[in-house]
Amino acid sequence: MRVAIAQLNYTIGDVAGNAEKILAVVEENKNSVDLLVFTELALTGYYPQDLIYSKLVKDAQGKALESIGRATEGARAAVVVGCYTENPFSGKPFCNSIKVFAGGVEVFNYSKKLLPTYNIFEEARHFEPGRQQGAWFYKGYRLGFLICEDGWGQADKAVYPANPVDELKGQQLDLIISVNASPGNLGKQKERRQVFQDIALRCRAAVVYANQVGGNDEIVFDGSSFAIDRFGKTVGMMVPFKEAVGIVDLEKNAGDRFCKRQLVGAAGFAYGEITLDQELMAEQAMVGLRDYVDKLGFSGVVAGCSGGIDSAVTIALAAKALGPERVKAITMPSEYSSDGSVNDSIALCRNLEVELFTHPIKDEFSLARSGFRTAFGTGPSNLTLENVQARLRGRILMEYSNHTGYLVLSTGNKSEMAVGYATLYGDMNGGLNLLGDMYKGDVYAVARWFNSAYPERLIPAEIIDKPPSAELAPGQQDSDTLPSYDILDAILRLYIEADLLPGMERDMQIRLLRGTSNELIQKVCAMVDRAEFKRRQAPPIIRIQRRSFGSGRHLPIVANYPTINSLGDLSLMLR
Amino acid sequence: MRVAIAQLNYTIGDVAGNAEKILAVVEENKNSVDLLVFTELALTGYYPQDLIYSKLVKDAQGKALESIGRATEGARAAVVVGCYTENPFSGKPFCNSIKVFAGGVEVFNYSKKLLPTYNIFEEARHFEPGRQQGAWFYKGYRLGFLICEDGWGQADKAVYPANPVDELKGQQLDLIISVNASPGNLGKQKERRQVFQDIALRCRAAVVYANQVGGNDEIVFDGSSFAIDRFGKTVGMMVPFKEAVGIVDLEKNAGDRFCKRQLVGAAGFAYGEITLDQELMAEQAMVGLRDYVDKLGFSGVVAGCSGGIDSAVTIALAAKALGPERVKAITMPSEYSSDGSVNDSIALCRNLEVELFTHPIKDEFSLARSGFRTAFGTGPSNLTLENVQARLRGRILMEYSNHTGYLVLSTGNKSEMAVGYATLYGDMNGGLNLLGDMYKGDVYAVARWFNSAYPERLIPAEIIDKPPSAELAPGQQDSDTLPSYDILDAILRLYIEADLLPGMERDMQIRLLRGTSNELIQKVCAMVDRAEFKRRQAPPIIRIQRRSFGSGRHLPIVANYPTINSLGDLSLMLR
Repeated sequence: MRVAIAQLNYTIGDVAGNAEKILAVVEENKNSVDLLVFTELALTGYYPQDLIYSKLVKDAQGKALESIGRATEGARAAVVVGCYTENPFSGKPFCNSIKVFAGGVEVFNYSKKLLPTYNIFEEARHFEPGRQQGAWFYKGYRLGFLICEDGWGQADKAVYPANPVDELKGQQLDLIISVNASPGNLGKQKERRQVFQDIALRCRAAVVYANQVGGNDEIVFDGSSFAIDRFGKTVGMMVPFKEAVGIVDLEKNAGDRFCKRQLVGAAGFAYGEITLDQELMAEQAMVGLRDYVDKLGFSGVVAGCSGGIDSAVTIALAAKALGPERVKAITMPSEYSSDGSVNDSIALCRNLEVELFTHPIKDEFSLARSGFRTAFGTGPSNLTLENVQARLRGRILMEYSNHTGYLVLSTGNKSEMAVGYATLYGDMNGGLNLLGDMYKGDVYAVARWFNSAYPERLIPAEIIDKPPSAELAPGQQDSDTLPSYDILDAILRLYIEADLLPGMERDMQIRLLRGTSNELIQKVCAMVDRAEFKRRQAPPIIRIQRRSFGSGRHLPIVANYPTINSLGDLSLMLR
Repeated sequence: MRVAIAQLNYTIGDVAGNAEKILAVVEENKNSVDLLVFTELALTGYYPQDLIYSKLVKDAQGKALESIGRATEGARAAVVVGCYTENPFSGKPFCNSIKVFAGGVEVFNYSKKLLPTYNIFEEARHFEPGRQQGAWFYKGYRLGFLICEDGWGQADKAVYPANPVDELKGQQLDLIISVNASPGNLGKQKERRQVFQDIALRCRAAVVYANQVGGNDEIVFDGSSFAIDRFGKTVGMMVPFKEAVGIVDLEKNAGDRFCKRQLVGAAGFAYGEITLDQELMAEQAMVGLRDYVDKLGFSGVVAGCSGGIDSAVTIALAAKALGPERVKAITMPSEYSSDGSVNDSIALCRNLEVELFTHPIKDEFSLARSGFRTAFGTGPSNLTLENVQARLRGRILMEYSNHTGYLVLSTGNKSEMAVGYATLYGDMNGGLNLLGDMYKGDVYAVARWFNSAYPERLIPAEIIDKPPSAELAPGQQDSDTLPSYDILDAILRLYIEADLLPGMERDMQIRLLRGTSNELIQKVCAMVDRAEFKRRQAPPIIRIQRRSFGSGRHLPIVANYPTINSLGDLSLMLR
């Protein structure tokens, strides 16, 4: 039996557009394969959120399902497609389901049993768990279906009362088909394959894991669909982040006393696994950006170019993702800007072939300063003056955006967003942030990776080597108020996502903090707590790590909670 | 049996502070009543969100519960307190529970069975439903417990597989104690009493409904705790929005063949029900503001004063809520500002006794305009120029805030936030928005109510009577680009929250739109859809209506969903 995985990129709510894409793949493959698998909530895109309550979306989905059903008339292939369905029982109105069409009619359906409601997920807001069996007999093969989280019931991060894998285990299946909308993040590809290898071995069945690609707001799906034979061996993995159709063959293994079949061959698959974290981060940011811009119809993006590492990496990734002609940079020197800042910006944009505008803020800054004195009868504080510069720049970026329709990219990294080292309505301005889920050290790693991957597009060494500074006051450096970035990042990683880190990586961070004072740890964690109000107004941040700011971490602003005061306490915050 | 309701104001995560408040009320009442009822998640505050995973919070709660238990040693009263507990079964790690302490020990506990996960609620993210019975025998009385949503299982807005009220129904209870963290919104007080009156009649038991007060981020709890006898009659209701302890007596009714008891008398209760919508909106905004400011320790607030209705109502409510000395206003006239704007601002602030600063933006505006031309080689578009003015003003407000530590209030109303008639990083700047859940018509109603309630603090009639204008271009009026506010508000009310409106109110809105073209309805709804990116970066909005922007409405930015194109379609969007 020939199975095809359609690893596609969907747009949320665009049921007609998504259906068109699906139907094109159905037409192309329906007579050359036996089973064609589309991914979770393919028709609405994942995640539709409250759009699921729209009857217009529901009607569109009904029509789309009819068309897909009709397309299977007289075809060799059965088609599996993710959609939402009415919940026939009490509880939430919908189920997160798949329908299988063959010979022009619906022949099977199954609804997700484990509904993730943690981190970025909120499926319990809309769905009720399904009740029916996931096993289905087709063309002499015993198939079993899982929808995404259904496969993760025994992973320790989320505990559920039921385990759909156990229910499939006794069914002597030939093949388990996992239909997913699984967002990419660091470590996820490896984790997935471990979980499903384990499922293959436990169920003694081959596994086909179908995932979607593409960005929707903060979330980027990496695809990386794969097939595993019943001995746990990976038969093939699809190139991450790319739309493609992958084909595997399920063959009878005559020597097996259970008469089980296994997967052989894999066309359209290529071992495209990304093993370097920095490459994965860069790819994820670029795909997230490209989809944000293209799905919303922006002609291009614009970012401030300070001569620092964050804006340089943002502009470099944008230029690579969209082409340099769709990226504009603006350098906005003040009286505190070093000459290097402007020169490095010029060198960067020349290397990247990105157009650079210059808009000094000196005059406006001094007018703002004198205006303050006139209006309020006193000179502004230093903090005020620092923020004024950031806000003048933020406004100029928005002027360019308003005038041209280009999207402003904000450039703060995760370490800065964590401790609030960013100005609201200033450098935080923007429709999207590419680096907001990369710690400062990650940004350097991505810069170095970029230079080795694209040597013709170098980020100048000066930018990578200079000590970080916001250049908002004379001679200012980040290290005046923050610990060195390796220490800061280690504290933050542990405070924000220690519970999700693999043990070895967690231990490494803890080792890095030997010798760090409790006062410093407490200070940093308190800064994170206090900056919640800023993050609440930040633009969407492309999610890359295991727990991102934004929808991944729900915390109140008005609150007064116990502050960590030692590394011992830090480990107590583990979730 | 004497029952006391403690209607208190808690701070999220501040377990030690909340416990101190609770213990003070326990000490004061423990020998004069038999049962002392504190509200849902009283120790952590509602809603703790992901803080619930903090072991520091957990340890603090453990200590607090011990102290509360000890305080009941040798006392007449049993104490009921809301807290979270470990879930002993599989599933989410916690339950949303109450514990009852008497004689120094825990004598009963119960965990919430219906976990709201819709609108602003996300309890399924953290909790598993409880399994035990809510009935408890105490001092010869049969009591039954419900926690908040447990009482709403048959209300049509949220459908659950179970109904805890049915489980209590057969128990021949004397008294049902409902322990709540129920946010206030329009219509909520009436709705609650209808639901619990029904429960009293169905279960033939008296009901004590205990709710908390105070603001936490967007949410304001109105209190309005009440007691209903077993014939459905309200015995007493506590004054909304105020901390207090209310006492009722449960007395034996000798003539009753079931030997049921009923509630009589009610000390500390006063019929404080707010029947005017505009008064409720104003109160809710003022309480939300006061708690935001005081719980976070701001010394005061500052807002731009444009001479328009929104900033006037914001400043008036703030002056009333905090005292005029904690409120500052800044008028920032441009070349497009009418003389009236400045004069009306002066009159307003004089009436309110609020200090008004003047900071013209003319010079900065012309410098920004020429700077744009120099940097980008072209003159800025009109849209760009309009936004520049709003952003100069937003920056000046932030300067004052940075310099003084005062919180900036943003002043956009719900109609403007809905259609995106607001400038990101401009007039949307601020830490909190008081009017963002009042439609434009509501703002006028609140202004008129304010003037009748506080005639010594008048909002000048000129401000209420002038046609709305952003004054960002010569002679500009809102009606140039938007329909009249009664039509706009009706479309928005139906599009955003029709499913939650009482039938009569929904019908009224539909009647208002007779004669409105489908094109206009489509245009307005498309504006709402497109403005999602702005709202994502808006400050927290104090929730007042049934569905507010912010946590009440989850929608994607990157999306392409079918646009409503007639009033017929509009009703199809009902949720």
